[in-house]
Amino acid sequence: MKQPIIAPSILSADFARLGAETEAVLNAGADWVHFDVMDNHYVPNLTIGPMVLKALRKYGISAPIDVHLMVKPVDRIIGDFIEAGANIISFHPEASEHVDRSLQMIREGGCRAGLVLNPATPIQWLDHVLDKLDLVLLMGVNPGFGGQSFIPETLNKLKLVRDKIDASGKEIRLEVDGGVKVDNIGTIAAAGADAFVAGSAIFNSGDYAKTITEMRCQIQHQFSQLT
Amino acid sequence: MKQPIIAPSILSADFARLGAETEAVLNAGADWVHFDVMDNHYVPNLTIGPMVLKALRKYGISAPIDVHLMVKPVDRIIGDFIEAGANIISFHPEASEHVDRSLQMIREGGCRAGLVLNPATPIQWLDHVLDKLDLVLLMGVNPGFGGQSFIPETLNKLKLVRDKIDASGKEIRLEVDGGVKVDNIGTIAAAGADAFVAGSAIFNSGDYAKTITEMRCQIQHQFSQLT
Amino acid sequence: MKQPIIAPSILSADFARLGAETEAVLNAGADWVHFDVMDNHYVPNLTIGPMVLKALRKYGISAPIDVHLMVKPVDRIIGDFIEAGANIISFHPEASEHVDRSLQMIREGGCRAGLVLNPATPIQWLDHVLDKLDLVLLMGVNPGFGGQSFIPETLNKLKLVRDKIDASGKEIRLEVDGGVKVDNIGTIAAAGADAFVAGSAIFNSGDYAKTITEMRCQIQHQFSQLT
Amino acid sequence: MKQPIIAPSILSADFARLGAETEAVLNAGADWVHFDVMDNHYVPNLTIGPMVLKALRKYGISAPIDVHLMVKPVDRIIGDFIEAGANIISFHPEASEHVDRSLQMIREGGCRAGLVLNPATPIQWLDHVLDKLDLVLLMGVNPGFGGQSFIPETLNKLKLVRDKIDASGKEIRLEVDGGVKVDNIGTIAAAGADAFVAGSAIFNSGDYAKTITEMRCQIQHQFSQLT
Amino acid sequence: MKQPIIAPSILSADFARLGAETEAVLNAGADWVHFDVMDNHYVPNLTIGPMVLKALRKYGISAPIDVHLMVKPVDRIIGDFIEAGANIISFHPEASEHVDRSLQMIREGGCRAGLVLNPATPIQWLDHVLDKLDLVLLMGVNPGFGGQSFIPETLNKLKLVRDKIDASGKEIRLEVDGGVKVDNIGTIAAAGADAFVAGSAIFNSGDYAKTITEMRCQIQHQFSQLT
Amino acid sequence: MKQPIIAPSILSADFARLGAETEAVLNAGADWVHFDVMDNHYVPNLTIGPMVLKALRKYGISAPIDVHLMVKPVDRIIGDFIEAGANIISFHPEASEHVDRSLQMIREGGCRAGLVLNPATPIQWLDHVLDKLDLVLLMGVNPGFGGQSFIPETLNKLKLVRDKIDASGKEIRLEVDGGVKVDNIGTIAAAGADAFVAGSAIFNSGDYAKTITEMRCQIQHQFSQLT
Repeated sequence: MKQPIIAPSILSADFARLGAETEAVLNAGADWVHFDVMDNHYVPNLTIGPMVLKALRKYGISAPIDVHLMVKPVDRIIGDFIEAGANIISFHPEASEHVDRSLQMIREGGCRAGLVLNPATPIQWLDHVLDKLDLVLLMGVNPGFGGQSFIPETLNKLKLVRDKIDASGKEIRLEVDGGVKVDNIGTIAAAGADAFVAGSAIFNSGDYAKTITEMRCQIQHQFSQLT
Repeated sequence: MKQPIIAPSILSADFARLGAETEAVLNAGADWVHFDVMDNHYVPNLTIGPMVLKALRKYGISAPIDVHLMVKPVDRIIGDFIEAGANIISFHPEASEHVDRSLQMIREGGCRAGLVLNPATPIQWLDHVLDKLDLVLLMGVNPGFGGQSFIPETLNKLKLVRDKIDASGKEIRLEVDGGVKVDNIGTIAAAGADAFVAGSAIFNSGDYAKTITEMRCQIQHQFSQLT
Repeated sequence: MKQPIIAPSILSADFARLGAETEAVLNAGADWVHFDVMDNHYVPNLTIGPMVLKALRKYGISAPIDVHLMVKPVDRIIGDFIEAGANIISFHPEASEHVDRSLQMIREGGCRAGLVLNPATPIQWLDHVLDKLDLVLLMGVNPGFGGQSFIPETLNKLKLVRDKIDASGKEIRLEVDGGVKVDNIGTIAAAGADAFVAGSAIFNSGDYAKTITEMRCQIQHQFSQLT
Repeated sequence: MKQPIIAPSILSADFARLGAETEAVLNAGADWVHFDVMDNHYVPNLTIGPMVLKALRKYGISAPIDVHLMVKPVDRIIGDFIEAGANIISFHPEASEHVDRSLQMIREGGCRAGLVLNPATPIQWLDHVLDKLDLVLLMGVNPGFGGQSFIPETLNKLKLVRDKIDASGKEIRLEVDGGVKVDNIGTIAAAGADAFVAGSAIFNSGDYAKTITEMRCQIQHQFSQLT
Repeated sequence: MKQPIIAPSILSADFARLGAETEAVLNAGADWVHFDVMDNHYVPNLTIGPMVLKALRKYGISAPIDVHLMVKPVDRIIGDFIEAGANIISFHPEASEHVDRSLQMIREGGCRAGLVLNPATPIQWLDHVLDKLDLVLLMGVNPGFGGQSFIPETLNKLKLVRDKIDASGKEIRLEVDGGVKVDNIGTIAAAGADAFVAGSAIFNSGDYAKTITEMRCQIQHQFSQLT
Repeated sequence: MKQPIIAPSILSADFARLGAETEAVLNAGADWVHFDVMDNHYVPNLTIGPMVLKALRKYGISAPIDVHLMVKPVDRIIGDFIEAGANIISFHPEASEHVDRSLQMIREGGCRAGLVLNPATPIQWLDHVLDKLDLVLLMGVNPGFGGQSFIPETLNKLKLVRDKIDASGKEIRLEVDGGVKVDNIGTIAAAGADAFVAGSAIFNSGDYAKTITEMRCQIQHQFSQLT
């Protein structure tokens, strides 16, 4: 397994002090900044856009920023995020008429490209674009809402996607978003994930560093058990 | 003329330090916080949503927050902004199938309600809802883009809308947004506006207080000339 | 003034016995059957479509059926209602890209054609189609919801539209829908309406005939006062 | 095989006497009432909505009502049908951005949840939601039109879905809608269906009870042959 | 009155020999080439796009090409037509969320800009953009269909728009499209038009030059009568 | 392998002389005319519609015309192309709510029917409609843009679809569109294609006949090597 990635979702951070919050969570050991973009069309919520990302860069954040587009359509806004300083951009296949082209646009802009699968979305969407993917993101909850718990079927789906990735021989991260917490991150890792988005589990804990460390321990523990 | 309102658009503020920025501009003499919401559908840009507004309230901002919805449709998200702590919510008539109902929803939620007219939008949209309006916002530029200059026709439109409002005898603010600067704010006031949104003119100036004071002087000066 | 038309909206009737209910309200003195069609897109509700209208015809209802389309777009479904046996078909100008053509389609199908104006919709939509209209329907509430009360501004709007119709010299009915009751129907008639849709005011009254008679008396009374 | 379900589609009933018609078909031995909802967007037809369902409940219909949503999007209207008294609500996966969430909404409302697959829709849509399904409905014709005959490929699809359901070990009904008649219901049952929607085959027959009994015989016969 | 413009619509030309047809009609005395673009969304037809215009330029056509966009939305495709070699680009106000901006885009691209009003569209759409218009196009029929006859109300509308243009003091062409023929072009000119689109009236006549000359005579005659 | 089909895309032809160009490429040995229809919605471009096809028929083109609809939705325009004289009509499954019905419409209109799969589109879309298909078209590039190169994954996809077709025992052409040139047509044929769309590769070559002959040689050569 590759070094696991912990990617706190800044959707749970304090937006009045976003620079400081982001800095704090990175200092606490986070690897990536997960940036959730909602447009009130693909999901019933509207969050933050490219200007906010640009402000984080200007503030001095240099860690990878992992943009998850919960918007439809995606093509026009991909350019905005590339220009604003994103490193990874992923979107839902149902949100683009031309999935392959959207992936190409992301890579041509110098970013890594990902596809996000909703809980019910068939995994066949990955079959003909594995050579254009740097990331597959499986939703552990339905996007657009807070306070949901992890959908158990995600574990089966993780195994199936892990097999597809391994069979392809490609360097593709398998990330999970939604309902990830200290007490289930080990099981999720065992099912095949190697990147983990967590929002409230980190930002609502008193101590970011302690929570991130516990998450890493749980992942580690899982694998030491296996061997 | 009523006491003029200066409403800095926080779209030009630093999003990494939004609480502090907002506090600073209010301390510098601003009356309202202007909050520009774009959804990447009604306009080709996506900015900030209700969670950001809620964070400002939690940060301690108690000044009126003046939400300008550049989203389509508007009905579902109106509730989110009411709940998040908005004071004034305005939208474009083209963005709602049922303009009267959307205005009612805003007022029933305890907020003041406004309609926003794009540069080309006919002013007849106001004719049958003047008794449900607390604010008319005229765009001085086309929404969704930065760096545009004030469209001169807005001055004629201001005069026509000022006459409609005065004829109705209602308490309705007449606000202008787009291209407002120290050197044209007097003319805009003379045409009938009594609330003024300014973004880069304030946030990109070295000294917020000085700029806001100059704006007030220009408005004052205009009216002392008239009398 | 032309003979006033009372048009009960069968949206308030018992859908399990729609034939008998419709027959009863016509026997009680109603002139037209008002048929409210909602599509869950133009308004957030879905009601009844052409098959239900056709069943009323087959049941033996021969009174004029006055179809109010709260659907968007309208062109494809107009044909269905013509074929099902409608007499009058009206729609909202915002719901058709080509208002003049939709009106022509209705008339070419042998029906009378109407435009419906929402409370906030400008009356200029009527200016260039008065020669293609048999009916103007002004909404006294926002369509798509029950339990609303009559919006007072409708009275001013009625007067303005009445003047437009009279100036045109055309035979055009001026109908009102929403919040019409025994106690305000006189005022509404005085403002210029000559056709009146009422739903719950009739169907929720114990005695359809008594209510319809009272409505006619109120209208009569208004005009005897005027002269 | 589970006890087969006969679900007459009231789209073929007389809408002027819907209460009596529904009662009659239930007295004739029907198990469920199949309720076809079309919105003139997902399919080019508009039929009946929640108010009609509510009227059936008020009339005294207590049998399970099986709502088939041919509408897009589905989320807002699901609540209306739950509140109106539906027992089973199914929708097309293409009609919801968030299939898993829509299924959850139905179950949280106390109803049983189903997915409907159009003739061409891939069966992979079922793969990750089998634990949230009470019903799979396969279309034997393309929805939205009358007078079509049963598409033979449906038999192959039934076998594939039957296998998926059996492999899952879940209690999921497999229903077929479209072109089902006395003379093919046996073959359809043999292919794996255990719930059968029939509209004109029942309502246009002179004798509801006789037709329903014949349908049950054909199903029975098929299985006695097999064993 | 300005020199009248005759603009044959190449929608009625032979698309297999479009270069030669266009050349012929220009040699026969036409002033502009009218280029009708339909997208199967704003109108139920799909015609020709920018690549066809570019081919005409490459063929050697140097006359002004007057592009009428019957597409929605318009912003993205405006650039394609500028780049392809258009001289005038006009669109329907209902087809752009931001009419003023779309007009600016056309002018910034070096073209003349126009608004097109459908038969029912209120003329108030012109009120605040007269300083950005080079052309107003009034539809004499509903766009998207052939074989319609000229709508008489267009004459009243022409007079009202002529007054608006004259009052503005701006150089704005007033063009009519739809149902224009030799026998009504004089009346249309008298009502205020100074540019005339004709399709079948020219291309289906045996002799382009004769027809165009007759049209010019009819216009001339009208004005010599007036004086 | 069936006799290979060469289908030049007239999108690369000179639109000012389309009749002559089409005739020339057919005289040069082409089998079908490939007709690319774009609507500025499904893809960001607008090309040519049914009137252009009709003009080719009137010009005297009698070869099969193979219409590729890059439009969404497809149902209304299918009839226009049938009436205009198309022989083969194919569309993208994502562009129709009711894929099976759209295929039926094409066949009932007397044309052959096809489905087109974008580079990322899962091949499971073919599973339940193989008995209604005369053609499967795999995109070798993303549709709507020029100047792209052939996506290598298409070769794997061709093999998978070839196996599906062969297993079905049906007479279904397997066509490829996008990036097909003399130097890769052999490999594409070896992967399973038996119909080949080429645009610029033919029309931008100096000599249509020579290029088409070379393409046929490359295909031939591939198969003689295999045996």
